[in-house]
Amino acid sequence: TKNYQIAVLSGDGIGPEVINETIKVLDAVAQTYVFELQYQQALIGAIAIDQTNEPLPLQTIEACKQADAVLFGAIGDPKYDNDPNAAVRPEQGLLALRKELGLFANVRPVKAYKKLLDKSPLRTEIIQHTDLIIFRELISGIYFGDKKISSDGRVATDTCTYTQEEIENIAHLAFQSAVKRNNKLTLIDKANVLETSRLWRRVVQSLATQYPTVEVDYMFVDNAAMQLILNPKQFDVILTENMFGDIISDEASVIGGSIGLLPSASIGDKTALFEPIHGSYPQAKNKGIANPIASILSGAMMLDHLGEHDAADAIRDAVLHAINQGILTPDLATDTTYTTNAVGDHIANHVR
Amino acid sequence: TKNYQIAVLSGDGIGPEVINETIKVLDAVAQTYVFELQYQQALIGAIAIDQTNEPLPLQTIEACKQADAVLFGAIGDPKYDNDPNAAVRPEQGLLALRKELGLFANVRPVKAYKKLLDKSPLRTEIIQHTDLIIFRELISGIYFGDKKISSDGRVATDTCTYTQEEIENIAHLAFQSAVKRNNKLTLIDKANVLETSRLWRRVVQSLATQYPTVEVDYMFVDNAAMQLILNPKQFDVILTENMFGDIISDEASVIGGSIGLLPSASIGDKTALFEPIHGSYPQAKNKGIANPIASILSGAMMLDHLGEHDAADAIRDAVLHAINQGILTPDLATDTTYTTNAVGDHIANHVR
Ligand SMILES: CC(C)[C@H](C(=O)O)[C@@H](O)C(=O)O
Ligand SMILES: CC(C)[C@H](C(=O)O)[C@@H](O)C(=O)O
Repeated sequence: TKNYQIAVLSGDGIGPEVINETIKVLDAVAQTYVFELQYQQALIGAIAIDQTNEPLPLQTIEACKQADAVLFGAIGDPKYDNDPNAAVRPEQGLLALRKELGLFANVRPVKAYKKLLDKSPLRTEIIQHTDLIIFRELISGIYFGDKKISSDGRVATDTCTYTQEEIENIAHLAFQSAVKRNNKLTLIDKANVLETSRLWRRVVQSLATQYPTVEVDYMFVDNAAMQLILNPKQFDVILTENMFGDIISDEASVIGGSIGLLPSASIGDKTALFEPIHGSYPQAKNKGIANPIASILSGAMMLDHLGEHDAADAIRDAVLHAINQGILTPDLATDTTYTTNAVGDHIANHVR
Repeated sequence: TKNYQIAVLSGDGIGPEVINETIKVLDAVAQTYVFELQYQQALIGAIAIDQTNEPLPLQTIEACKQADAVLFGAIGDPKYDNDPNAAVRPEQGLLALRKELGLFANVRPVKAYKKLLDKSPLRTEIIQHTDLIIFRELISGIYFGDKKISSDGRVATDTCTYTQEEIENIAHLAFQSAVKRNNKLTLIDKANVLETSRLWRRVVQSLATQYPTVEVDYMFVDNAAMQLILNPKQFDVILTENMFGDIISDEASVIGGSIGLLPSASIGDKTALFEPIHGSYPQAKNKGIANPIASILSGAMMLDHLGEHDAADAIRDAVLHAINQGILTPDLATDTTYTTNAVGDHIANHVR
């Protein structure tokens, strides 16, 4: 039987809780589809700072590099957020990990589930049938550029740089995805103002000739922030740079009614990391109210990545079953609410 | 009688049409409230490029500097948008004008009109009673930083710089507005990643002591992009840097059901500019379908700025009357639709 090594980085806040449920479901599906998963836990984020003074210990990087895939919970703790002078921040751990593993593409599918249409802040007719996927560049741009603060602390600078190669790498993935989907790709940029955006536009325009079936659209980020809410159905594949992707993909997460539903994959040349997009949600920690579905669906994306497509589909079916039966945490439940644990149990039982 | 000099920059697309209606309404209200407005037209944007090869002719800058206020239509033309190699772009005209006039604060009120609640893509219970105002820094940050492209065209860079003084200037305006409103200010930044955002946070934290009645919140921009849709009522005054403000304020424009409703003011030390936020909307040009309300309400903000508060209120009353009577362009009308011109007439007649 096949055997996969999984590095597990549960991290902070509700990370450990949702990862527990994910492992429960993965173990169940592994039994049914006859493969083995071996987990190695490693530290990241605030908990890593607390225990080792570093947000990303060397051991964690090693564990990830040796693994076939990385399962990630969440990082971040409010005690670091409102201190602009903090020397070490949990987020540095995640940013450094992305860089170390070369995770250049963050992939986020966004779907409106029929059963949950009325949970969205958007009207049903706006969101129904929405099915889009966002490709966000993840290891370059302003989040990774030079940062400076003057010695008197009065002038700060961030730098945004992109190279043609960086853009090509992720653009190819996005085009390939468009070919498998509905052959529509929208580049989101600010080419009327930014030099980096104009480079993105040129590179994408020139790659487009290699994907003749794909219709390519260009949209300014300010307009995109509106269009996502006015008419999300117009999008199929969205391609964008790091910071725009951060903002736009979180904005898109409102469509489905709960950020607790949305998985993501971060893809590199050698390794890949799978992560719910909701973050650490510290207010919900240890209350049994965290929605494990985003993390469980991230586990399904991981199985797809490992080539275990049937097992991945089984997880998605089981999640759909839980949604349709109303086995849901308080963020989505209509009458009875279920705990994190109960939702995980239901999904695990269904895949067995 | 008082006499005000107004520089009128109608610009591109639907700019001239909505400015015509605004002047119609301003003239009507000036008669009633006994003051005089003198207009001087000047070129900007694509039309300026077409006629003078420059997006912002010197004459236009002079006209604005000599005026008591600037009334602005829109700029932008699709023929420049998809050409990342274009040497001159209409947007440069607007950016340069903001810089020349030192318009450091862009102010955008966003309201949900009771009569139009069902026009929003968001559910009624989410948006009703929304009443927020966004202060966007307008002449610094990445839109105005150094831009570089390598000689082989393969590496592009944009730079984002902020100084303490730049942040203080706009932060004071935002705090003053909060004091007059509901004493709540939310700074939107990405202080967990960006050096400039950490400077914003430090400066705002330290100014806050001068406004003890104001409750100050800090929110990361990715989260803010969600919160604006999930619960816009939580916001009173939003303060943010240039690019985040561009994205967030356009996103917020969906709340009210039509971007055609939203005015803005851009404030400098000496002069101020008033502009609908909708942009040039070239597809609607010369069809009589452009909604003039955003521009007319920008005219009202201009009168407030000139100290003509009663006249400004009269315009707002007349707009509300048009909305409540359903005298609306196709973007908002329910049964009968009215032309740009008819909506302008109705509002002008009502203020008389
Ligand atoms: C925690 C933070 C650095 C991170 C980012 O902005 O990249 C997060 O918001 C995300 O989107 O994964
Ligand atoms: C036209 C463009 C340069 C401008 C900006 O982004 O500042 C516009 O989008 C705006 O928001 O006024």
